[in-house]
Amino acid sequence: MTTLAVRYTAARTLEAGPSANRPPGPGEVELAPAYVGICGTDVHIFHGDMDGRVAAPTVIGHEMSGRIVRTGPGVEGCAPGDHVTVMPLRWDGTCTACRAGRQHLCQQLDFIGIDSPGALQQRWTVPASTLVPLPATLPLDHAALVEPTAVAVHDVGRAEVRADERVVVVGGGPVGILIALVARSRGALVRVVELSPFRRALAASMDLTCWDPVADDVPELVRDWTGGAGADVSFEVSGAAAGVTTAVDVLAARGRLCLVAIHPKPREVGLHAFFWRELTLVGARLYDRGDFEHAVSLVADGTIPAERLISRVVPLADAPAAFTALEDGGDVMKILVRCDDSSEATS
Amino acid sequence: MTTLAVRYTAARTLEAGPSANRPPGPGEVELAPAYVGICGTDVHIFHGDMDGRVAAPTVIGHEMSGRIVRTGPGVEGCAPGDHVTVMPLRWDGTCTACRAGRQHLCQQLDFIGIDSPGALQQRWTVPASTLVPLPATLPLDHAALVEPTAVAVHDVGRAEVRADERVVVVGGGPVGILIALVARSRGALVRVVELSPFRRALAASMDLTCWDPVADDVPELVRDWTGGAGADVSFEVSGAAAGVTTAVDVLAARGRLCLVAIHPKPREVGLHAFFWRELTLVGARLYDRGDFEHAVSLVADGTIPAERLISRVVPLADAPAAFTALEDGGDVMKILVRCDDSSEATS
Repeated sequence: MTTLAVRYTAARTLEAGPSANRPPGPGEVELAPAYVGICGTDVHIFHGDMDGRVAAPTVIGHEMSGRIVRTGPGVEGCAPGDHVTVMPLRWDGTCTACRAGRQHLCQQLDFIGIDSPGALQQRWTVPASTLVPLPATLPLDHAALVEPTAVAVHDVGRAEVRADERVVVVGGGPVGILIALVARSRGALVRVVELSPFRRALAASMDLTCWDPVADDVPELVRDWTGGAGADVSFEVSGAAAGVTTAVDVLAARGRLCLVAIHPKPREVGLHAFFWRELTLVGARLYDRGDFEHAVSLVADGTIPAERLISRVVPLADAPAAFTALEDGGDVMKILVRCDDSSEATS
Repeated sequence: MTTLAVRYTAARTLEAGPSANRPPGPGEVELAPAYVGICGTDVHIFHGDMDGRVAAPTVIGHEMSGRIVRTGPGVEGCAPGDHVTVMPLRWDGTCTACRAGRQHLCQQLDFIGIDSPGALQQRWTVPASTLVPLPATLPLDHAALVEPTAVAVHDVGRAEVRADERVVVVGGGPVGILIALVARSRGALVRVVELSPFRRALAASMDLTCWDPVADDVPELVRDWTGGAGADVSFEVSGAAAGVTTAVDVLAARGRLCLVAIHPKPREVGLHAFFWRELTLVGARLYDRGDFEHAVSLVADGTIPAERLISRVVPLADAPAAFTALEDGGDVMKILVRCDDSSEATS
């Protein structure tokens, strides 16, 4: 059977074309992706920024929902037709990080969709160990938000956010908003700092208070908000130098800064503040299975208002144009690619 | 009665001269300092680097041991002749940090010896609340190391160093060596990175393994030492840009970097490593009473080999020359100033 796949072939070039399928091997499962979310990392790949890591031509995409088509030998506990998502990690199990129980930090980690072929296709074969079951009642378009929600669950966990703590999220893109929503679900009081008026308005529609880092004096607003103490936790999700500064400046004594964004080059950091106020900076990357399963429940119970976060759904053949739209910025939060023409009806 | 005091009067100028004493007020105690250690911060003050904070002319010095001379009205639980050291902090008790139980991070903290007059004098009046009792069997010259040891206890506690963890201390001056010794006393395996051959040899005499950041490839040595994993904990005690880089580079996945040194200006920090390996950076400043009391026990029981760390003891009148010697670097670890001519006999 021949199906459609979208391949990254070179910087700024995605090509939709036919793909030949092979039967799933032992321990493998063939999926029919229903929806695939486009992640900031996918856009970086599209830009050519990750050509050292991504072996073109290859299929990308790692935020997905779908159905099991067929299972390979030895696969138990799931069946064709089941709704699933994929935790797109494969680790070696032998490196020092794996032996220490930190498989998501495996020194040889295979991030499926970056280091090996991803979900932007109509048939996708993955190890059964990566499957995370979805409730049949959860619409599959909403379920495509499980992966970024798992990132947010992990980040909020790394920051050890507790009820009644005051939390500032610097950067109100999809991951920043998801962090804000997950932190709020733990009882924290949250503020979001975001440049884009569109994203601020969208966050406001979810009852999140937003500040503009250009027009507002954010540290002063935080002082007013916290009676002069500063915030308990900040999340740096902007990737910008100014975002790092803001995330440090807003913190109270013993405040925790959770570093979520990727800063490829070293950044100037006000280390004196870390000394003076005994701040903590904690890096957060990816997730584990517990984070993923919790994310499923948060999307399913409406804690994550998926319908508000999904700005647009495009058919698989139009994925290349969607990347160009995301690259141009504009008024968008999350774009989903619909891989299977029948998905719309069932979701 | 008129006694001798050493005052900081202007950049690179310390002057020994007479000082008039007043009786201790309510809640105060008059001490006869026996020994005062010269701290890196004192040298910064001497350089004029802290003129914005230090109100010259003033007496500096905050690492001390001594005896109670007389107590003011309402002071209980101590008596003339008692051996004591001073935890040189006074907090307002009302700011947000104090109300959160972080008195040592008080927004109005009075660090006695910097923000108010210090110990480099023959009579020193302090609040009785700052006193920490010393065992009568502990030599007073050794006891002058309690304050920097309390810093080290606090730092090791902030890094949550556990038995069998591998710890790299970047910077082998007095605080770095004390951190190494305190970490070892908790069962950690320790390596010290230090430029000075004199300090490396001194550390080696305390059975601490040292590496030379110029001649040795420290990250490679750490990989060999840890079977490729990296260190569990690093301490940045050098204050140098290269020290920050080393302290990041040596860490394992989920490693903790404890920031001890003061970096007045922002530093370039490899934030990508914090993301990729989920590192933690934790700032550490000063100490609390528990740290101080633990430090007394570590100096008293010989965990801290004080006699090896004390390079030189100079009389109070020679303190100005001792600062010049420290400023020039040279082969020195800790210099003590002997304030009372009778101290030598009793210690």
